[in-house]
Amino acid sequence: MEGDFGDFPLRETRIAILGTGLIGGSLALALREHVRALYLADPDPEARALAHTWNLGDLVTPHPEDAVRHAQVILLAAPVRAILDLLQRLPQWIAHPAIVVDVGSTKTAICQAMAALPPRFDPIGGHPLAGKTEAGLAHADPHLFRERPFIFTPLPRTSPRARAFAQALAYVVGAFPLWMEPEAHDRLVAYTSHMPYLLSAALALAVPPETRDVMGPGFASTVRLAGSSPRMMLDILMTNLDAVLEALDALQDALWEVRRTLEKEREKDLQRLLQNVAQRYWAWFR
Amino acid sequence: MEGDFGDFPLRETRIAILGTGLIGGSLALALREHVRALYLADPDPEARALAHTWNLGDLVTPHPEDAVRHAQVILLAAPVRAILDLLQRLPQWIAHPAIVVDVGSTKTAICQAMAALPPRFDPIGGHPLAGKTEAGLAHADPHLFRERPFIFTPLPRTSPRARAFAQALAYVVGAFPLWMEPEAHDRLVAYTSHMPYLLSAALALAVPPETRDVMGPGFASTVRLAGSSPRMMLDILMTNLDAVLEALDALQDALWEVRRTLEKEREKDLQRLLQNVAQRYWAWFR
Repeated sequence: MEGDFGDFPLRETRIAILGTGLIGGSLALALREHVRALYLADPDPEARALAHTWNLGDLVTPHPEDAVRHAQVILLAAPVRAILDLLQRLPQWIAHPAIVVDVGSTKTAICQAMAALPPRFDPIGGHPLAGKTEAGLAHADPHLFRERPFIFTPLPRTSPRARAFAQALAYVVGAFPLWMEPEAHDRLVAYTSHMPYLLSAALALAVPPETRDVMGPGFASTVRLAGSSPRMMLDILMTNLDAVLEALDALQDALWEVRRTLEKEREKDLQRLLQNVAQRYWAWFR
Repeated sequence: MEGDFGDFPLRETRIAILGTGLIGGSLALALREHVRALYLADPDPEARALAHTWNLGDLVTPHPEDAVRHAQVILLAAPVRAILDLLQRLPQWIAHPAIVVDVGSTKTAICQAMAALPPRFDPIGGHPLAGKTEAGLAHADPHLFRERPFIFTPLPRTSPRARAFAQALAYVVGAFPLWMEPEAHDRLVAYTSHMPYLLSAALALAVPPETRDVMGPGFASTVRLAGSSPRMMLDILMTNLDAVLEALDALQDALWEVRRTLEKEREKDLQRLLQNVAQRYWAWFR
């Protein structure tokens, strides 16, 4: 699924973004100068007030049905199960053809729901691999996606035009598009995102209160994902449970391997293990 | 062990730093303008060449016995077991009284070795809670210790003068001193530093190679400690094994709690767990 899907006339396109949290808000900031119109919907009054202050959209509304009314592209930027709910309601709100892209963190359930949309919709799944601990529009950043992968999971029905839009979206926010099957996406990010979240969560639960004074930068880094939004993570875990449990298996096995090597107190074995770990790390992040 | 130990005349003091890696080098950068003389020793020719280029010391030598010759304070900034070795050899090199401070990552073994020093030495254990993934003098930073705790573990024989020096050292590098028993230090940092390293190591071992393309910022953060120097970590683990295994127990128990809650698929329980995790995180890092 590689390749170049050609140009897409972003400048002539009216885009609705449903959800102006960290990701939806950052997309809005990155897109606003490059599109014909931006219609924003968010249920949170504070987010809407900030969007008004920043003059972030041509329309800022609590009503998603108003935001999508004149949009040729609809970007769904909410927690996964809120996206599933929006996909259910979209056909009642909109009678004209529209490209539908989401930016949710799991893709299988969302692409299944997209497959059930009426034919006037041209859907494609999306997931920018970007984020930070602080959620919400107040922390949005137009550069959040720079040099990051923007994964797209097309459906069999996804048109070349929707793929061209996806590619243009990735490029205009500074990301690079990656094409993938929804199930492959969910299995891989279970290892690199959802299981690491559970690992940070377990770390947060495991440290006794008296450690408070000795939390250095290493601890802050390792426990960072524990600060993720519980609502967002709950939706992710509930829509990717099998893959998450598989990745958790692999982690628990690796922890036992580490533990056995420590308990044997055979220094050469421990040294080999630590060198293997550092080699893997620096192969990824040098 | 709180309190103010008075002024120490840093400007009149000749200090030797044995080991100019990330920590020793950062201390040298932060201290150079505030002391009478700085004598640096490091076995690595590249580190010495860089120290010469930066004009970092009044003496830069491969021979620790030369660096300590005229020093009133000796700072040991090497991996833990290299510090133990230096403490063994110090009495042969130096016949005059000297304050001895180390900055190693575990304190019990080092303070035991310090207790065996001849009476002309005035020893105190130290550990600045600062660092980064990249090791070595090339990555040294005089601001590394700013607003970080600098833990000191005095011995019964440690004089008020050595405590005053420790306090002055912390202040001049921008850190704040924290006084602790060596065993308490080692137990606490097992939870906040050594076990988190093992957790990152297990994560590095657990992810399959095909995840390479989908490693986002969350993964980078959680796995960061896996990039730590194997030599440094080997010394830490070998000198703090019991406390590390206790902390690993707590982590493995917490992981099982997380796993059981996932497998039950009782959404309310999972939600409560995730909210508890986020509350803990934001109580520490807000």
